[in-house]
Amino acid sequence: MRLAELSSRSGLPTATIKYYLRSGLVPPGETEGSTWARYDDTHLRRLRLVRALTEVAGLSLDEVRVVVAALDAAGSEHDARGAAQWPLSAPGPDEPTPEALDQVHALIARHGWNIEPDSPHRRVLAAALDTVGELGMPATDEILDAYAEAVDIVAAVDVPSVMAETDPIVAAEKLVVGTLLYEPVLTTLRRMAHEAVSAEPS
Amino acid sequence: MRLAELSSRSGLPTATIKYYLRSGLVPPGETEGSTWARYDDTHLRRLRLVRALTEVAGLSLDEVRVVVAALDAAGSEHDARGAAQWPLSAPGPDEPTPEALDQVHALIARHGWNIEPDSPHRRVLAAALDTVGELGMPATDEILDAYAEAVDIVAAVDVPSVMAETDPIVAAEKLVVGTLLYEPVLTTLRRMAHEAVSAEPS
Repeated sequence: MRLAELSSRSGLPTATIKYYLRSGLVPPGETEGSTWARYDDTHLRRLRLVRALTEVAGLSLDEVRVVVAALDAAGSEHDARGAAQWPLSAPGPDEPTPEALDQVHALIARHGWNIEPDSPHRRVLAAALDTVGELGMPATDEILDAYAEAVDIVAAVDVPSVMAETDPIVAAEKLVVGTLLYEPVLTTLRRMAHEAVSAEPS
Repeated sequence: MRLAELSSRSGLPTATIKYYLRSGLVPPGETEGSTWARYDDTHLRRLRLVRALTEVAGLSLDEVRVVVAALDAAGSEHDARGAAQWPLSAPGPDEPTPEALDQVHALIARHGWNIEPDSPHRRVLAAALDTVGELGMPATDEILDAYAEAVDIVAAVDVPSVMAETDPIVAAEKLVVGTLLYEPVLTTLRRMAHEAVSAEPS
């Protein structure tokens, strides 16, 4: 398809698409003659992904660039999972306390989770625990164990749909969509469950 | 305490605190003489909350204003829960499809959740379902049922700690902290569980 059709099918203005092409967020089309290029479903899918990452997941274009670079690398290396997932969890500027890190390591050990020692998730989680602690709502082991039990149920339905995908590029895209764009589904359902539990007679 | 101590204990510059005071995000101190005011732990707690909402939860100051107004209203009306929680889930600009709304209503009915007919969570969730569907990863009822089971476990540990709080202002603050600032705990744990499940021999 030509640029105009790519624009109408992705819902993005041609100027925006040209900007994404220039900045490498979307791979170039196949040149046809000197003035136009041909695009296919790969380009359309990538544009929809970039749009969802910025508009729904609220990522900056710099963050999208990291995710997209990981996707492209995963596609060639046939190793979609770790490569595409870790960049989504960049640790914040604050160094977590050793106490919070110890609590995270103990949680992982208690649940027998196979998590790389240098996985960024350890530090991101520890920093989140420091924050809730500073605000007077410390995460007890009881709370963390309940959360861990809950995410085991979630991961059991999340992961197979990605693992079943044989095309590594599509698999990596599904991983990003599944990770980032199912987060609002999970957090909104949690708020619903709060409303439901609060309404129960005590 | 005076402004300088409020600044050192909250980690916020005095200029920022003055701005928050002017814009009503933080209640005024008790005037002592003509040139200074006295602040107490209420002010310190509110500043820590505003800081966490902007820096950790990523809310804009306008969004913080909505949350804080709901907190203040809840404190006087002794009805912390709904008032403080609903403003956290403002529906986005996109109208969800009737199909997605039907799927949400059916999920709520299936799980016997007591959710108000005009709760914003219904529309927010339906819009999230539309997004993942458009990106080729539709939420099946099987996925939603697993997510619902998971958030029931989470809500069972979240809600009692808030319900046990008798001071309505503190209860409303805890609800906001618990809702917004435990979200990164939950989403990071989900990513960890993905890493753990992906590493299991299939």
